[in-house]
Amino acid sequence: MKDRSATGCRALSDLRDLLGRAHVLTDGATDPFARDWTGKWRADPLAVLRPATTQEVAEIVRIAARHDLSVVPVGGNTGLVGGTANTGALMVSLERMSAIREVRPEAGVMIVEAGAILSDLHAAAAAHDLVFPLTFGARGSARVGGFLSTNAGGSNVVRYGSTRGLVLGLEVVLADGRVLDLMSELRKDNSGYDLRDLFIGAEGTLGLITAAVLRLLPAPHHHATALAAIRDLPAALSLLRRLQSATDGAVEAFEYMPRTYMRALAHHRPDLRQPFAIHDHTVMIDLGGLSRPLVDTLEEVLSEAVEAGEVHDATIAQNETQRARIWEMREAAAEITFKRLPIVDNDVALPLDGVAAFIDRMHERLAAIDPAAETLIVAHLGDGNVHLTVYPDDGCRLEDIREMVEDVTVGLGGSISAEHGIGLSKLSTMTRRKDPVALDVMRAIKMALDPQDRMNPGKVVPKA
Amino acid sequence: MKDRSATGCRALSDLRDLLGRAHVLTDGATDPFARDWTGKWRADPLAVLRPATTQEVAEIVRIAARHDLSVVPVGGNTGLVGGTANTGALMVSLERMSAIREVRPEAGVMIVEAGAILSDLHAAAAAHDLVFPLTFGARGSARVGGFLSTNAGGSNVVRYGSTRGLVLGLEVVLADGRVLDLMSELRKDNSGYDLRDLFIGAEGTLGLITAAVLRLLPAPHHHATALAAIRDLPAALSLLRRLQSATDGAVEAFEYMPRTYMRALAHHRPDLRQPFAIHDHTVMIDLGGLSRPLVDTLEEVLSEAVEAGEVHDATIAQNETQRARIWEMREAAAEITFKRLPIVDNDVALPLDGVAAFIDRMHERLAAIDPAAETLIVAHLGDGNVHLTVYPDDGCRLEDIREMVEDVTVGLGGSISAEHGIGLSKLSTMTRRKDPVALDVMRAIKMALDPQDRMNPGKVVPKA
Repeated sequence: MKDRSATGCRALSDLRDLLGRAHVLTDGATDPFARDWTGKWRADPLAVLRPATTQEVAEIVRIAARHDLSVVPVGGNTGLVGGTANTGALMVSLERMSAIREVRPEAGVMIVEAGAILSDLHAAAAAHDLVFPLTFGARGSARVGGFLSTNAGGSNVVRYGSTRGLVLGLEVVLADGRVLDLMSELRKDNSGYDLRDLFIGAEGTLGLITAAVLRLLPAPHHHATALAAIRDLPAALSLLRRLQSATDGAVEAFEYMPRTYMRALAHHRPDLRQPFAIHDHTVMIDLGGLSRPLVDTLEEVLSEAVEAGEVHDATIAQNETQRARIWEMREAAAEITFKRLPIVDNDVALPLDGVAAFIDRMHERLAAIDPAAETLIVAHLGDGNVHLTVYPDDGCRLEDIREMVEDVTVGLGGSISAEHGIGLSKLSTMTRRKDPVALDVMRAIKMALDPQDRMNPGKVVPKA
Repeated sequence: MKDRSATGCRALSDLRDLLGRAHVLTDGATDPFARDWTGKWRADPLAVLRPATTQEVAEIVRIAARHDLSVVPVGGNTGLVGGTANTGALMVSLERMSAIREVRPEAGVMIVEAGAILSDLHAAAAAHDLVFPLTFGARGSARVGGFLSTNAGGSNVVRYGSTRGLVLGLEVVLADGRVLDLMSELRKDNSGYDLRDLFIGAEGTLGLITAAVLRLLPAPHHHATALAAIRDLPAALSLLRRLQSATDGAVEAFEYMPRTYMRALAHHRPDLRQPFAIHDHTVMIDLGGLSRPLVDTLEEVLSEAVEAGEVHDATIAQNETQRARIWEMREAAAEITFKRLPIVDNDVALPLDGVAAFIDRMHERLAAIDPAAETLIVAHLGDGNVHLTVYPDDGCRLEDIREMVEDVTVGLGGSISAEHGIGLSKLSTMTRRKDPVALDVMRAIKMALDPQDRMNPGKVVPKA
């Protein structure tokens, strides 16, 4: 057991009075919350707290203020940017606040507590023949508060948008312990500033999200899923546009996997037998029809592309098993990426027509810095979102490589974080690359809403 | 010519040096900008300024600071809430900054100056077989800066969302005269707080929008448009859901017009011959197919609804002329509404399943307050957005009626402004009805970004 300051002890005593001993975890009991799944980021909190109500969360924030402690929310711990790293903070886990309070199919909404797990939301929506479309590999662990605080993306943003587009209402505990009630179920609301979208993606630095109203959509019943080897990236984008037109926008995923990725996949996951030889460029396509089967449409569009010399080979899933296997090829990315260390991992967004230029320029400049470096790329091509992992030849060029990727990204009008957020890991990048006026505006907002810098301090917005 | 203070004269002199005499309008020359089209709200500005560049806008804000003047943006003057009313302010018109700088079909974006007119954007997108979907009656006058600052809605929000969902990037002149460059073309960007959505819908109170990156979408080529007399509102919502499913979400508009509206339409616009007798409930349906004609689908779904006794009568447009006439029946609303005065006009949003309850309760309570009052309703039913105009029997009950409508709206979890914004006209409603914590957060943000209260002061956020 650790030595503690008198302040820490008094805070723990207040917290035990509030929550009961069982819900104030200290020392070894905090381990599962303190280590994120990349193993790169650690937390050393004073305690992990497990409140059962919004009022208890609010009281925690007031106790933190009294003892001058920080408050750091922790969800499923599936983040990649050190968003919950801290020393001596009160970490708040909402795992006891995981209720799906209400599903209202007629209104197309689901009212949930922020500790609910994403895959549970999927199941609850499916029971009403509806869908909460946000999805990504970590859906079995990721919690509402986490995916809202990071404005999570995933594989079907091309159809449904990121988290922000799927949220109607929020409840937030503010830095002063007050509860902000934005639990609207409305499609339209122009009554003042858009506070909701400010808290979404703020990574807990402006307040702690405790509940949300989420949008539900009609469930597509007719999936058509394919893997296609394609000539180049422009051909891929043109294929995407033709698929959008031919299906009235039913493209649910359009994922790019180049040779390096397919090769790594063959190496690490031989069980996922690839349907054709490895080509330079492969895309995974998933269509989701509401009213009609789309397999024929997919086949037609792909056949035309084959005749035009744009697609070299293609396979369409004939059943759910084959479909699941194609998806697994894409979702194995997270697992494969971390097989080797050190890495420089990037999550950049480009204008849709800038992805090819990004990949070319980046490889050219990487060859100059570290000729033996290898890369692994997988991209949400429909969103211009490239996940690029660089494996340097030695560990001495990490910073040079990082800055080179930033250079190329910003030079093409891109963003240095598409969907993973900033946390701690991208703070220096924010300082270097974000418009200084934008940084000042963010600082002014942070100062206005959290003048004591109590809520997840040191994340997202670098100090001036 | 008006007497002016010495300060006013010095400011005008600085502004003439900056912009040239021709672009500093005073006295009678300001009239076209100072009167909004409802005739309800007036402005009495020191001058109307017509800058040609973002740098000139920034310099205007600095000159305003030097002389302690307010800055009020004015667009097409098609607002309904007094958003540009002022006395002695510098009004800024961007009519000389109306360029469509770039259309990039491959990237699906259009880069525009904030003075561009909405219908010009439509034409520019159409030239590339694309669509910028935002549309409403005033599209021939409304300018980018105006529809962004009010997060405008309109008739096809059910498919495409409000303005906020159609904007990728912004350029904003801040209260301190700095230029905030958020001109992103990206689909995803998690690099810090969502500043873009904060400035959208802020009605010019946090900064002045000078340019934007807008999303372009594939143009639907196959329209199917109908007018249908329907049993009741639940039947209408169920019809909407069936249409969504049958068309993979191709419903572009689903507008509700009850008996009172159709009667007023018959009276004021006999030229728009109605295709069938007036029923209690009528909906206007517009479908927009990308890949396939939807007329057969529409006919099928309507026939089934006729057989189920849910639809009493229906007509499907057989050509563009008939389609235009059906649309005109809906778009005549603005014109018809203001034929009589005084009015209590409301723009409320309800949960999708709360519209019927709202209309019933409101009529019940209105009968108790003013039995002879009449109402006019038209609703974007797919968004839960009801435009309700009350014509009181005398002018003495306006405030009672206003508060009654607020009561019923808030009682059903609704919002007191769906798409028109707050401006001046809804300020007292904001004070009464908005969560006090939310109001405090808005005040803190306003204070942080505009500590001198220089940007469109007195709008949106009521004083504490």
